[in-house]
Amino acid sequence: MPIVLLTDFGTRDAYVGILKGVISQIAPQVPVIDLNHEIPSFDVDAAAFMLYQSYSYFPEGSIFVTVVDPGVGGECRRVLVKTENYFFVGPDNGYLSLVLMQEKMQHAIHLTHEAYFLNTVSSTFHGRDIFAPIAAQLAEGVDFQDMGMEIYDLKHSEHLMPRKTKGKIEGKILSIDKFGNAITNFSRDFIRSQIPNLKFSLKVGTKKLTNLKSHYAEGKDKIPFLLFGSSGFLELCVNQGSAEKILRFKKGQKVSILF
Amino acid sequence: MPIVLLTDFGTRDAYVGILKGVISQIAPQVPVIDLNHEIPSFDVDAAAFMLYQSYSYFPEGSIFVTVVDPGVGGECRRVLVKTENYFFVGPDNGYLSLVLMQEKMQHAIHLTHEAYFLNTVSSTFHGRDIFAPIAAQLAEGVDFQDMGMEIYDLKHSEHLMPRKTKGKIEGKILSIDKFGNAITNFSRDFIRSQIPNLKFSLKVGTKKLTNLKSHYAEGKDKIPFLLFGSSGFLELCVNQGSAEKILRFKKGQKVSILF
Amino acid sequence: MPIVLLTDFGTRDAYVGILKGVISQIAPQVPVIDLNHEIPSFDVDAAAFMLYQSYSYFPEGSIFVTVVDPGVGGECRRVLVKTENYFFVGPDNGYLSLVLMQEKMQHAIHLTHEAYFLNTVSSTFHGRDIFAPIAAQLAEGVDFQDMGMEIYDLKHSEHLMPRKTKGKIEGKILSIDKFGNAITNFSRDFIRSQIPNLKFSLKVGTKKLTNLKSHYAEGKDKIPFLLFGSSGFLELCVNQGSAEKILRFKKGQKVSILF
Repeated sequence: MPIVLLTDFGTRDAYVGILKGVISQIAPQVPVIDLNHEIPSFDVDAAAFMLYQSYSYFPEGSIFVTVVDPGVGGECRRVLVKTENYFFVGPDNGYLSLVLMQEKMQHAIHLTHEAYFLNTVSSTFHGRDIFAPIAAQLAEGVDFQDMGMEIYDLKHSEHLMPRKTKGKIEGKILSIDKFGNAITNFSRDFIRSQIPNLKFSLKVGTKKLTNLKSHYAEGKDKIPFLLFGSSGFLELCVNQGSAEKILRFKKGQKVSILF
Repeated sequence: MPIVLLTDFGTRDAYVGILKGVISQIAPQVPVIDLNHEIPSFDVDAAAFMLYQSYSYFPEGSIFVTVVDPGVGGECRRVLVKTENYFFVGPDNGYLSLVLMQEKMQHAIHLTHEAYFLNTVSSTFHGRDIFAPIAAQLAEGVDFQDMGMEIYDLKHSEHLMPRKTKGKIEGKILSIDKFGNAITNFSRDFIRSQIPNLKFSLKVGTKKLTNLKSHYAEGKDKIPFLLFGSSGFLELCVNQGSAEKILRFKKGQKVSILF
Repeated sequence: MPIVLLTDFGTRDAYVGILKGVISQIAPQVPVIDLNHEIPSFDVDAAAFMLYQSYSYFPEGSIFVTVVDPGVGGECRRVLVKTENYFFVGPDNGYLSLVLMQEKMQHAIHLTHEAYFLNTVSSTFHGRDIFAPIAAQLAEGVDFQDMGMEIYDLKHSEHLMPRKTKGKIEGKILSIDKFGNAITNFSRDFIRSQIPNLKFSLKVGTKKLTNLKSHYAEGKDKIPFLLFGSSGFLELCVNQGSAEKILRFKKGQKVSILF
């Protein structure tokens, strides 16, 4: 099963390459897949969302390594989470909050047994010294329960969920993709459960969108529209253009559904 | 044989990682190689050129997946092309026009059999839902002729070819690389066939270049020169500097050969 | 053992993909790992530093291919270096100067035997035509001593080392990472050997830093501090912010240790 990497390391530095070096020393036959390394620095919410929209496309037993941590080297616990279908290795900072809405958690292990760490003096690069060797040893068949102590208080981030108030549902823009589409935290399933006939409008800043399409190509030139995107979330889009440039939204901006 | 990916997805989003996840579910042992993911959004010509300059360096039997499509999710057919040596999976938008000048096409299959698609409600992410699973199943030995219906009218893009008029040959700048070299659509073979002694000048904007070198290092500081580059096409170069900054050309700009 | 790639090719062009194609033709089973492709164009010192901070995390027998060369296609020799633990394939331009402070060199082979090159007319893309096929054949078990002639005058770059003068040690900023931390060429071992009690200050421009921390998280908001980073070198950092923005240093800038 592959080891899948998700970090805020970017591609300018050697960090990602070094993670792969460490893995290849311990588990030379295990494929390593880059999920993404362009998470904005320290942006745990962005990592949470990207993992959520991606993880289920990977084979059962995949080992996800997430390194996005405002507190790297500091007080944050390092944790391995085993769900019904996957392993997740990373800091205890809430990055699994969205995934665990769908995946049933079976174990959370606080990674305390230093025998499984890389033998190094550094205290600043947990990806290299802890997460990569843990993932590689896991892939090689080491029992995860030997790696630390079971915990029951994994951090959870409530602020990623939409909130229903009277007459509207408040959410936010979780991500803007490279084409300039905004991805909100309103999933199709959630909206269907609240508004079965899908008659609603979306308010972003002072503008209101009402036209829900089912393909990008249905959009007319420069006219923004709504779409349930490939991740299952409601998106603000423009066909062959940038909704970001036309609607001037920002990541994290509040949006509301009126119905 | 590897699956080779060429897209306009960029590296900011999860799209490329998700393609690899889908492939690893179906064909866990098959190596996946990134050819490129920085094709400008919707730029089919750029994809056509990059595939043309690259494909022949990959092993026979390689499966190329190209996802660059202005009409994604819209009307464009999804097609698998089998040539003498390779498989190409992607939209029917002309991206194979340059490759098929060199590679003999044997079959073009309109991918219509949904049994080979990913089982999903999304209608916007053909890379994930159609092209990745088709490529992975092909790599696992599924017969391509079961995947859809043979077609005989694959789209072709004439505008990528140079045009001879009296006294000159008109072409264009297909690509500008990161060093600032411009790559034209004049191949060495084509120029040799027209001008066997290679005595010609190249006009770009109001400037004319005549000095044809055989190595970058022969160029003098800041003086632009011509070179048949590593892809076999005529390039406008500056040694250890940027021809783009000095000559101020743009991608797509017309250039002419005078002889 | 993996082939590890380090280049200044960037990710916009097809160059990296083509290297992998060539390798997969010759050595289809050998894993290829990207160390980095964002070395600034022609910046041999940056490549030297990145290789130095990374190579030891890769398995013994790894084959490093480095393509960063101001003189590409020109006069620079192409060389294979075998050390006690690794192989290094690349131009003879001093990029191994830092690595060879730690790794014992056993052989340096000037790659002259064209039978091992790719059969091609191009003279501008040594990565594709020479380094990739050499690395792949090496990985497939070809004897490196057949590939060319032993040499004893490999190029060395003195200017990468710190220099002690009276009362101070002069060094420089080797690299600035994506978080805005500056990495100097003062290693922990070197400073310990000169200043066993680690009581020193670092001068950068007109500013002086004295607070040496052991974790990023110990730093206070917006106050720059010193840290021996994950690569073992002294860094100028800001916790959850950019030291580069606050201290306005540049890559290559001189810094001094006063004690």
